[in-house]
Amino acid sequence: MDELDERLKKQTAFSLEIDKEKNIFRQTHLSGHGRNENDAEHAWHMAIMAYILREYANETIDIAKVMLMCLIHDIVEIDAGDTYAYDAEGAKTKKAREDAAKDRIYSLLPTDQKEELIALFDEFEAWETPESRFAHAMDNLQPLLLNDSNGGEDWKAHGVCAAQVYGRQQKTRLGSEKLYALTDQILRQNIERGSLPEEAFQDDGKDQKDK
Amino acid sequence: MDELDERLKKQTAFSLEIDKEKNIFRQTHLSGHGRNENDAEHAWHMAIMAYILREYANETIDIAKVMLMCLIHDIVEIDAGDTYAYDAEGAKTKKAREDAAKDRIYSLLPTDQKEELIALFDEFEAWETPESRFAHAMDNLQPLLLNDSNGGEDWKAHGVCAAQVYGRQQKTRLGSEKLYALTDQILRQNIERGSLPEEAFQDDGKDQKDK
Repeated sequence: MDELDERLKKQTAFSLEIDKEKNIFRQTHLSGHGRNENDAEHAWHMAIMAYILREYANETIDIAKVMLMCLIHDIVEIDAGDTYAYDAEGAKTKKAREDAAKDRIYSLLPTDQKEELIALFDEFEAWETPESRFAHAMDNLQPLLLNDSNGGEDWKAHGVCAAQVYGRQQKTRLGSEKLYALTDQILRQNIERGSLPEEAFQDDGKDQKDK
Repeated sequence: MDELDERLKKQTAFSLEIDKEKNIFRQTHLSGHGRNENDAEHAWHMAIMAYILREYANETIDIAKVMLMCLIHDIVEIDAGDTYAYDAEGAKTKKAREDAAKDRIYSLLPTDQKEELIALFDEFEAWETPESRFAHAMDNLQPLLLNDSNGGEDWKAHGVCAAQVYGRQQKTRLGSEKLYALTDQILRQNIERGSLPEEAFQDDGKDQKDK
């Protein structure tokens, strides 16, 4: 092989490009009151959790698809940056930023793989399939476990209250009722110990009250 | 759910424990002459590369199995630490250190999942299945891409020569002849530009010479 063929060259370029995801830092901190976590670590963690916890999906899921979805779901943030879950201003421009990023980064791949991975990312974003809903449950639960292990310091640092956290976390139940029950239990414990202020908390009247 | 059931409690404990893999740093540096890479980032990168490059596997592979293998293959290093590829002293105690780690960490899981993941890790280590050989090809190629992008600085920092690198990298051909041809091309370019000293290099006489 004197010259790489064009296809492998593109796949290699993409493989090197995604290395940059390791420099995109999130608001979540590692357990043990560690440093901020980056997107690549978060995605790795989500993918393993998806496999370990797959028995709790509400619906039948293709776990390989879920894992791949978890692994790639933040690649767009190489260009678009991380938008914190409770950043209302950032949320307004998130889609436009991520669409531009998606096009640039996945275009490094051969066309068939570009189309396949963009379709998978779009599926994740649309919340319409069992796989996307379970992947989102991981996207919620993974930072929750870390933050809970650190006494809720990420919420405190951003002045986030229970209503905001429930607003996001309650969508976990779309992917897994069981893992939402776990989530609810963790949130209640944090409210009780004063790590998550109840202020402005509005119960939606649904059944988490009785769990 | 007033109390987590025992099974979910174990799965949650394991999920939190593996967070520590993000603190295990490797000798490889991120592209752009960045900081050292950690094991979680390396595993994430390998799993995506496995998916993108799966068409080059020598044999038919179950890609979901390869990806999971990539994701978990360094969990033992939470206790055992990273052993650099060219650390002959460390290599002598590697297996004993990793066996103890394997038992402690996977025992956090319910028994069925402990057994499943230990079997997967052992399969990776044994190099006997198509999946393990392709996962190892990723374990070789991923740091090679980063190091190549940085002008071979990781080899220089450790005084590694071409014979040592070929000794490790030639096993990539067990998983993928095509990706070994890519590897060989990258190594030859590095030798030519002086990034990888040829000193002590011994050609094994096999066919990479003619590629």
